[in-house]
Amino acid sequence: MTDQQRPKSVIVIFGATGDLAKRKLFPSIYRLYQNGKISEDFAVIGLARRPWTNDTLRENVEISIEETVAGAQNLEEFSSHFYYQSFDVTEPSSYNGLNELLQELEGTYQTEGNRIFYLAMAPEYFGSIANNLKEYGLKETEGWTRLVIEKPFGHDLESAKELNNQIREAFNEDQIYRIDHYLGKEMVQNIEVIRFANGIFEHLWNNRFISNIQITSSESLGVEERARYYDRSGAARDMVQNHMLQMVALLAMEPPINLTTDEIRSEKIKVLRALRNLTEEDVDENFVRGQYGPGVIRRRNVNGYREEAEELAYSPTETFVAGKVMIDNYRWAGVPFYIRTGKRLAEKATHIVVEFKDIPMNLYYEDQKKNPNLLVISIQPNEGVTLFLNAKKAGHGSSAQPIQLSYNSESVNGINTPEAYEKLLFDCMQGDTTNFTHWDEVANSWEYIDSILSAWSKQEPDFPNYNSGSMGPDEADKLLEKDGFHWWPITDVIK
Amino acid sequence: MTDQQRPKSVIVIFGATGDLAKRKLFPSIYRLYQNGKISEDFAVIGLARRPWTNDTLRENVEISIEETVAGAQNLEEFSSHFYYQSFDVTEPSSYNGLNELLQELEGTYQTEGNRIFYLAMAPEYFGSIANNLKEYGLKETEGWTRLVIEKPFGHDLESAKELNNQIREAFNEDQIYRIDHYLGKEMVQNIEVIRFANGIFEHLWNNRFISNIQITSSESLGVEERARYYDRSGAARDMVQNHMLQMVALLAMEPPINLTTDEIRSEKIKVLRALRNLTEEDVDENFVRGQYGPGVIRRRNVNGYREEAEELAYSPTETFVAGKVMIDNYRWAGVPFYIRTGKRLAEKATHIVVEFKDIPMNLYYEDQKKNPNLLVISIQPNEGVTLFLNAKKAGHGSSAQPIQLSYNSESVNGINTPEAYEKLLFDCMQGDTTNFTHWDEVANSWEYIDSILSAWSKQEPDFPNYNSGSMGPDEADKLLEKDGFHWWPITDVIK
Repeated sequence: MTDQQRPKSVIVIFGATGDLAKRKLFPSIYRLYQNGKISEDFAVIGLARRPWTNDTLRENVEISIEETVAGAQNLEEFSSHFYYQSFDVTEPSSYNGLNELLQELEGTYQTEGNRIFYLAMAPEYFGSIANNLKEYGLKETEGWTRLVIEKPFGHDLESAKELNNQIREAFNEDQIYRIDHYLGKEMVQNIEVIRFANGIFEHLWNNRFISNIQITSSESLGVEERARYYDRSGAARDMVQNHMLQMVALLAMEPPINLTTDEIRSEKIKVLRALRNLTEEDVDENFVRGQYGPGVIRRRNVNGYREEAEELAYSPTETFVAGKVMIDNYRWAGVPFYIRTGKRLAEKATHIVVEFKDIPMNLYYEDQKKNPNLLVISIQPNEGVTLFLNAKKAGHGSSAQPIQLSYNSESVNGINTPEAYEKLLFDCMQGDTTNFTHWDEVANSWEYIDSILSAWSKQEPDFPNYNSGSMGPDEADKLLEKDGFHWWPITDVIK
Repeated sequence: MTDQQRPKSVIVIFGATGDLAKRKLFPSIYRLYQNGKISEDFAVIGLARRPWTNDTLRENVEISIEETVAGAQNLEEFSSHFYYQSFDVTEPSSYNGLNELLQELEGTYQTEGNRIFYLAMAPEYFGSIANNLKEYGLKETEGWTRLVIEKPFGHDLESAKELNNQIREAFNEDQIYRIDHYLGKEMVQNIEVIRFANGIFEHLWNNRFISNIQITSSESLGVEERARYYDRSGAARDMVQNHMLQMVALLAMEPPINLTTDEIRSEKIKVLRALRNLTEEDVDENFVRGQYGPGVIRRRNVNGYREEAEELAYSPTETFVAGKVMIDNYRWAGVPFYIRTGKRLAEKATHIVVEFKDIPMNLYYEDQKKNPNLLVISIQPNEGVTLFLNAKKAGHGSSAQPIQLSYNSESVNGINTPEAYEKLLFDCMQGDTTNFTHWDEVANSWEYIDSILSAWSKQEPDFPNYNSGSMGPDEADKLLEKDGFHWWPITDVIK
């Protein structure tokens, strides 16, 4: 990688004392640095309310990396690029101070005036920070300025629009990097490649050959300390509006005419625009919400959601969503995309199952049971691709049995697969917005989610309705049974 | 398995002192016996010219099983079912003696008069034995009689017809079991199941999605002690006429309306009838013959074919054939089936590669090289199925790389996969002729081979033309290059 390709910039992290900075951002910047992906001339400014010093921040950076990156070296040299400023997001002097520090560091590190503002903090300040950055002249630089925004991007379509309008007063759409960290995951990025780089799949990738697609993102953890934050959100906002619908879009999009950001995003937006509108009746029939009760996970007794914190005692917030998403376009008419996500489920795993239509005639099975072919894309914690086929049962006779052809990405590529945040940060520094969500994607997703939440708000849910350690409420199974399908229980195909 | 299903019969082996009996038949009968696949009331009569006794045969049976079956038990009890008779195939008294012995054993073992006559000996006697069996009354029994014939079935179409006519004077087509032991192989039997029990493949199994199919059956051994026999035959007769064309037929056949013997065979025959006729020019252009010279295999210096025996010093016999087989029907028009077989090649392996047409447009490769999807069926020595796909190269960017999804039959099913002869013997005892070659298949294959041999007979070959330890003559590679393809070097995909 030549120096030309190694982006230079100062990264300003709002919320530098927070969990995300510690668990994801510091280690990601470190790995980019260690792998020579960014210029050695870089600086990071950490901002937060606490009265830390440069040294406190640097110490925290070093600890976070020691805890997350095996065999880390040169930590002191690395952390010397980090600077801390105590910051009040409503205070003009804070912005003026930041501007001075930026100008100073741009001199020291020759970063050509490039500035990334990374909002890794409470969402209520997103809009005002963006505007203050402009107002106090932090966008007046010879280089580029980019704004990275963590989720949640709004609470519903209206608040998202409001937030977006605020931000857009200060930043253009192409300067805004809305993070959906699923889009940084290796196997999510692989969906497109698997579809469009294989002669056999694209022919089969439509309603003539696919019977349904199942997307599951299950967590075994509960909400625990995040209870208060989570209770204002719930699974539909926290997982479906962004991650799940993004995976639907990647699975369903038409082949782009090329791989530029605009072409890919515009194909994804077309999918989201084609989501079938939901009446209240449709929501009742096609979406299932759940909230976990107590239960047992890995032989440990765990609390129900309503016992996680005092104020949740009567909470109607869903910790589980299953749904049948229909895409009304020529390619997908009639093919359900079943999505399922929840907390305190039996296993932590994200995977996609593409179920192909079965053989037209049964030649090989003694009973009438057929085994449709499945393509399974395992996203986390294991990464890989598995194809379930049928082959002759060994021995005499010619009856068939399912066989499993597997590719385990980790075992082949080793442990060097870059983490999602590392890839997204690098993309941002290179000015590549492909794996960030465009406003039109956000807006269309919120519109869809709003219709679900609005229907739900009219009925008191009967919570809790699933045990911790199960795979969610029975209704989630019935959702598929009505259509003659079932969830494929293949969380640990790839090991 | 109920007693009803366990077939009872006396098996009469002509050529009981020979190599095939020892290496394949005795161990196969033993495994059927050990696995309870045949009734404990069975008997085997061994026939040959040598003046053996029952005890000599039994001792030989026990030795052969000890050498081939791990952990064999009850050998003495097993071999007590074996009886030997010294036999002259031209001598009426031999047949009368056999009849008496049969009647006696049918009393002892209650085999209901069922008789299998297995001709595991020199082909020149096949016709007269069949006729003598009828003439001397060995077919006059209350049970069924079946005739199993080893290859070669004739030397060309004319001699095969003559042999068939002789045999048909004594036996009906449905009493004749022509062995092609490839049809007993697990993964050859799997071809049909893989094609017709998987929703995704049958849609792709035609000239719209497949660019070419490659079938390689390579041996690393030379002819060695079989030199004299082999020299009268050659690779086209020894391998192509039967095994290779049978695999072509299984790969190319239309789905049968059901799995009965007649339906499957009639679909296979249709393929063989659709083989494109070859003019002499076609043979020159589409078929390559070779004969091995000296060379190095696994660091050992080995002789050329012409040094294997004195009388081969000027032999024009081919030990290698490669060819482009075209099937003129609606499904396969334009799709070459490349076949390749030979002795003293770099590796011992039989496999089928189905090369799918590539993606219509290249989105993911930096250079223009594309990687077509391949379905590899590994037949021997390893058994399995591998699909070569493309996926995202791990890390930043979105270029693609080939990945390999594998299913290894042995590692899943253990070492209990029945050997080809075991399955075929069992089929024969059950009266299932599906995996034996019908006369129409033999006739059509010979017609095809005759046109090749006839063209070759008009030109003196320039032998030897490939080194032992190579993959055959250069012309075999050029054959595919002319069409823009190449042999896929994937002999050891499945390990």
